[in-house]
Amino acid sequence: MNIYDIAKLAGVSIATVSRVVNDSPKVSEKAKEKVRRVMEENHYTPNVFARGLGLGSMKAVGIICPDVADTYMARAVSYLEKNLQGYGYDCILYCSGYDAEDKQQAVERILKKQIDALLLVGSDYADESADYYACIKEVSGQLPVVLINGYLEEEHIYCVLADDFQAVYDVTDELLFAGKERILFLTDSDSYSARRKLEGYRAAFKEHGVEINEKWILQTEQGIYATRDMLLRQRNLHFDGVIAVNDSLAVGALKYMHARDIKVPGEINVVGYNNSELSISCEPELTSVDTRPEVLCKTAIDSVMALLSGKSMKQKQMVKCHLVKRSTTDF
Amino acid sequence: MNIYDIAKLAGVSIATVSRVVNDSPKVSEKAKEKVRRVMEENHYTPNVFARGLGLGSMKAVGIICPDVADTYMARAVSYLEKNLQGYGYDCILYCSGYDAEDKQQAVERILKKQIDALLLVGSDYADESADYYACIKEVSGQLPVVLINGYLEEEHIYCVLADDFQAVYDVTDELLFAGKERILFLTDSDSYSARRKLEGYRAAFKEHGVEINEKWILQTEQGIYATRDMLLRQRNLHFDGVIAVNDSLAVGALKYMHARDIKVPGEINVVGYNNSELSISCEPELTSVDTRPEVLCKTAIDSVMALLSGKSMKQKQMVKCHLVKRSTTDF
Repeated sequence: MNIYDIAKLAGVSIATVSRVVNDSPKVSEKAKEKVRRVMEENHYTPNVFARGLGLGSMKAVGIICPDVADTYMARAVSYLEKNLQGYGYDCILYCSGYDAEDKQQAVERILKKQIDALLLVGSDYADESADYYACIKEVSGQLPVVLINGYLEEEHIYCVLADDFQAVYDVTDELLFAGKERILFLTDSDSYSARRKLEGYRAAFKEHGVEINEKWILQTEQGIYATRDMLLRQRNLHFDGVIAVNDSLAVGALKYMHARDIKVPGEINVVGYNNSELSISCEPELTSVDTRPEVLCKTAIDSVMALLSGKSMKQKQMVKCHLVKRSTTDF
Repeated sequence: MNIYDIAKLAGVSIATVSRVVNDSPKVSEKAKEKVRRVMEENHYTPNVFARGLGLGSMKAVGIICPDVADTYMARAVSYLEKNLQGYGYDCILYCSGYDAEDKQQAVERILKKQIDALLLVGSDYADESADYYACIKEVSGQLPVVLINGYLEEEHIYCVLADDFQAVYDVTDELLFAGKERILFLTDSDSYSARRKLEGYRAAFKEHGVEINEKWILQTEQGIYATRDMLLRQRNLHFDGVIAVNDSLAVGALKYMHARDIKVPGEINVVGYNNSELSISCEPELTSVDTRPEVLCKTAIDSVMALLSGKSMKQKQMVKCHLVKRSTTDF
């Protein structure tokens, strides 16, 4: 039972139902009574988001991401915008940067705008201890908030995310089966998605009964050169596999192997993440996890529109990843 | 002499000057007379854009680009948004795609919004024969229109662009000096910027008195694999240098050389364009032209703000490029 059903049963437009929900003076008391009776009879609790419907909505959705220059986020924003266009909605873009304070400001600023929904791109926003979390939580009662590739256990914050746990579990499992037992886990972030990837890595080792050397879990700065240099600085680190949380780090690892004249995949297998253009630029070409941002973003926008039309949504929607095998692995 | 000076001399706020320019009923006839006298005495012709000032402006700038998933455009949008934020303006993003009809629609849609200025990113919009050109031209009398990396000879369309002619002239000149005389020019577009690059290529050959074989000017589809495959299909094409209009095409050329076991830079020198992350992902790492989008975008936003505050601007502003030399060239 949604707003459309109520409108039909009450013999009024959905705009009228929406106005009744908001107790608009534009609707006669008689019509209000009728609509309210239908709602009661059908145990219909109006979705607060249905308020926006046709009532001076700007038909605009706010999108916040840390930096649209990032390849993954650029693709996500591109898909989100395309899907929003399909629904006749505009996209107001804010790049918040990575600092907690700047994120806070971006959230505060965008919430002052007349937006119909708020999209947060990137798992960097899934931090429950941050100040902006309180803002997002508060606003989530008033307009649809969708987190893309992040998760918050909050009734009204809808999360659409890649199944990073399963993707890394699966590829670690394949590497272990192929006899690689000293696998580095390279990360440049402590985001929700990076943590889930690490959990997948640990779970696969556990399943195989192989112990992880904690030295294999390596934190690096962002970027190709930073990763290469960090690996060049390591002493007595022996490994035969690398799983990186994004393609930049994986390419950085390849640069290290190139500098050390290590054969890939003969001596070391390397797996990247995001299946970006980088993965086909390097030599050998990179096996990489495709998180299918096109599916993720379509799901996110469809969800926003469903919420705006008064339908209910699952709070958490997972999208399965695909491993694209190229020349840096030999399984 | 700008709107601020007039406001000061008339002893009123700039909002009042703006209202007088627009003949707003909110200003008394007495004040109007005073402001008009000051304007006349100082031979001040109000900039039409000054209208927006403080008069219910949404403080939003519309940005259109073909596709923000493109690395170059993603960086540009990121810099533009950052600079707009600095001025307290929002960014409404439209991705139009590459089809003329879709561009037309995007331009029409964004012009229906209450935007204070319109930014067009990418030289794909510098097509005077397109239908959307008429729209852009018309609107350029009403709000600042800035073309980024494109050029239109139109009084009120402000153009900020990389000096692509000079950049390609210079690198072709270096290649010719280094003894490379059979240089391919790889392009995937017929945009303004691609044409300017080609002119730079031709001019350098002319300067050196070396004749160009027209077969060296090669059109390819977008992307790394398409470029590699196009080169693999060529028969009897002998060359010792490659200049590509973007890094993807240059990496595609490197893939071709890898497949053919051709030594780079020993046998062939390769030069890319945009200095993207791709240029450091490939092996050997790519010499590439840095078009300095950070400077370009800052210049564009500073210009918009200058126009909005009633200042006059140069119609065409060029930004000098830098060649970043890496391992695919030996000069």
